[in-house]
Amino acid sequence: MDFKLEATAPDSAARAGVITTDHGEIRTPIFMPVGTLGSVKAVHQHELRDDIKAQIILGNTYHLYLRPGIEILEKAGGLHKFNGWERPILTDSGGFQVFSLSANRKLTEEGAWFRSHIDGSKHLFTPERVVDIERSIGADIMMALDECPPGTADYSYARKSLDLTHRWLSRGWKRYKETEGKYGYSQAYFPIVQGVTYPDLRRESAKFVADLGADGNAIGGLAVGEPAEVMYDMIEVVNEILPKDRPRYLMGVGTPANILEGIDRGVDMFDCVMPTRNGRNGMLFTRHGIMNMRNKKWADDFSPIQEDGPSYVDVTYSKAYLRHLFIADEILAMQIASIHNLAFYLWLVGEARKHILASDFKPWKREMLECVTRRL
Amino acid sequence: MDFKLEATAPDSAARAGVITTDHGEIRTPIFMPVGTLGSVKAVHQHELRDDIKAQIILGNTYHLYLRPGIEILEKAGGLHKFNGWERPILTDSGGFQVFSLSANRKLTEEGAWFRSHIDGSKHLFTPERVVDIERSIGADIMMALDECPPGTADYSYARKSLDLTHRWLSRGWKRYKETEGKYGYSQAYFPIVQGVTYPDLRRESAKFVADLGADGNAIGGLAVGEPAEVMYDMIEVVNEILPKDRPRYLMGVGTPANILEGIDRGVDMFDCVMPTRNGRNGMLFTRHGIMNMRNKKWADDFSPIQEDGPSYVDVTYSKAYLRHLFIADEILAMQIASIHNLAFYLWLVGEARKHILASDFKPWKREMLECVTRRL
Ligand SMILES: [Zn+2]
Ligand SMILES: [Zn+2]
Repeated sequence: MDFKLEATAPDSAARAGVITTDHGEIRTPIFMPVGTLGSVKAVHQHELRDDIKAQIILGNTYHLYLRPGIEILEKAGGLHKFNGWERPILTDSGGFQVFSLSANRKLTEEGAWFRSHIDGSKHLFTPERVVDIERSIGADIMMALDECPPGTADYSYARKSLDLTHRWLSRGWKRYKETEGKYGYSQAYFPIVQGVTYPDLRRESAKFVADLGADGNAIGGLAVGEPAEVMYDMIEVVNEILPKDRPRYLMGVGTPANILEGIDRGVDMFDCVMPTRNGRNGMLFTRHGIMNMRNKKWADDFSPIQEDGPSYVDVTYSKAYLRHLFIADEILAMQIASIHNLAFYLWLVGEARKHILASDFKPWKREMLECVTRRL
Repeated sequence: MDFKLEATAPDSAARAGVITTDHGEIRTPIFMPVGTLGSVKAVHQHELRDDIKAQIILGNTYHLYLRPGIEILEKAGGLHKFNGWERPILTDSGGFQVFSLSANRKLTEEGAWFRSHIDGSKHLFTPERVVDIERSIGADIMMALDECPPGTADYSYARKSLDLTHRWLSRGWKRYKETEGKYGYSQAYFPIVQGVTYPDLRRESAKFVADLGADGNAIGGLAVGEPAEVMYDMIEVVNEILPKDRPRYLMGVGTPANILEGIDRGVDMFDCVMPTRNGRNGMLFTRHGIMNMRNKKWADDFSPIQEDGPSYVDVTYSKAYLRHLFIADEILAMQIASIHNLAFYLWLVGEARKHILASDFKPWKREMLECVTRRL
């Protein structure tokens, strides 16, 4: 994996760059749609590529490990072959899902024991095992196993948790260095900065992470309940330390406003279920503001979903029709909203990139922030 | 509406024809995907047109009357404008849903009283009102309101029910003749032959219907639990009487085998929720047989869904991936299966048409019947 920094905005830490993987280029800043089980919910692969213009998608290690399982993914020759997505894929470590979804989970020095949320079967994720699993999935970018403490964790818990996360990171890094890409292409390994909302822990973690010299670095454990301003502060604290010549990935973030603020603070990569999950519930993000499509006010508004929208669904379907589909619980509502929201997120980061390259990111961001946070 | 009969197969009543409506041509025999609420479930309009190659779709009067409601459809300028489907649309009368979905329904001479399955509100469908509603929906082909007695109804019930259906038909026909296309294009009105499984009632009904001289005629009340052979007998009895120079529509039928048998007996139009509903449950119809995609046997079968299939999904996605999507309850599974099954149904009637025109329908049908009823 290679990262080429192309430009940094004046009066901002915002950057434009290009990540090159064996499955193609990713122009940053970038948003990565979440394809939990090897499918971005309600979206065909060709829609991701042609209508949404996704450059990289996420897979969830926890989910893929349970279904279809590693044996099937290996037989298929990796996730790209299995689901037919030929562009880059990033996998999380599964740690977050172990803590949020599975029952009877138990943390030990060795790793995280958990029971499957599907059949109750018992499993162990160790830092080494997770590298092996992500090798088998065939992700272009693999994430390290970490503990994700709650956003409300006190200092002493955060301290202990961070030490464990760093010991796990060293073990995972070692396994990563001893192994090779499973399917003939290279696979990068991103360590993750933790430290809850404690600046000294975040700094310590950022230094620990930076010292590895990985192909890219991630910031985890944010957007888990803390105020947005605190999240932005943590990003600043961390990005002062993370190397400038490697991509920075802010995990699980966020709203369009969060993404603009993250970019402004030097983040290059984002992922979030919000555009798809909220979309399936009827919330549409647009450059002119947020629409709740279940609202009665759209019932007889036969204008296009978004006349100047980035995707064909925006001009093909009307607000009234989309509202009707949501009220009637039609699957097509979720399909349309998912395509719209993802295309909008990709449009937003693409515009940010253009404005970074054109040296007017800051004023553009200020205007755009007002638009995207409005309620329509 | 116009119907041109192009060919009749030797040793068979199978026919090839062309229906011309103000929204374009329909080449028969044809299968019509069901778009209950103005959306064929899990399928985009452009997929219907380009991937499935649907020539006409159905809308359900009962459902559209309740949601989005006639006021909205009129404001939109009809269903075509509302949902963006520019080809022909046929609407049923809503009678079937009144009897199967709504609560506290009550039949009177005047019409059918019912309570909405959504909010319990009380409504009356009369033959005249249903014509008005279908005019407002803007269907190219509107169906008459009839009573649908159960397939097990005894003779005396069937007799009484048929008389009511015929009185309703006369009233609906009168209203139809007194009114005009609501949006500037013409709307046809198809009467429906009833009579349960009693040949004399079916004959009487077919004569009553034929005497109206409508643009097309339908056969209702079949595939409601009676043996397939009885259904085929009823089709033969009725089609001896229905005019040859008008299209014949067998309502709510059926499996690929049912459709081949119907075509063989002179039916031109079919509709059924089976390809979409069964598809959403994991059942795929193919020219080589039926696949239950949840079956373990597909777990590591990485071959295309159907190598020689009629739609891009057949070669884009593997059996193993589709099985995984079904097991994991991913929405994409329903999307893929719906496109596949509908494309197959459209392919099947298209092939039937080719073989009718080539005068080898009968031997082709014999071979195809064996294929499509096989379990894979
Ligand atoms: Zn705006
Ligand atoms: Zn075959």
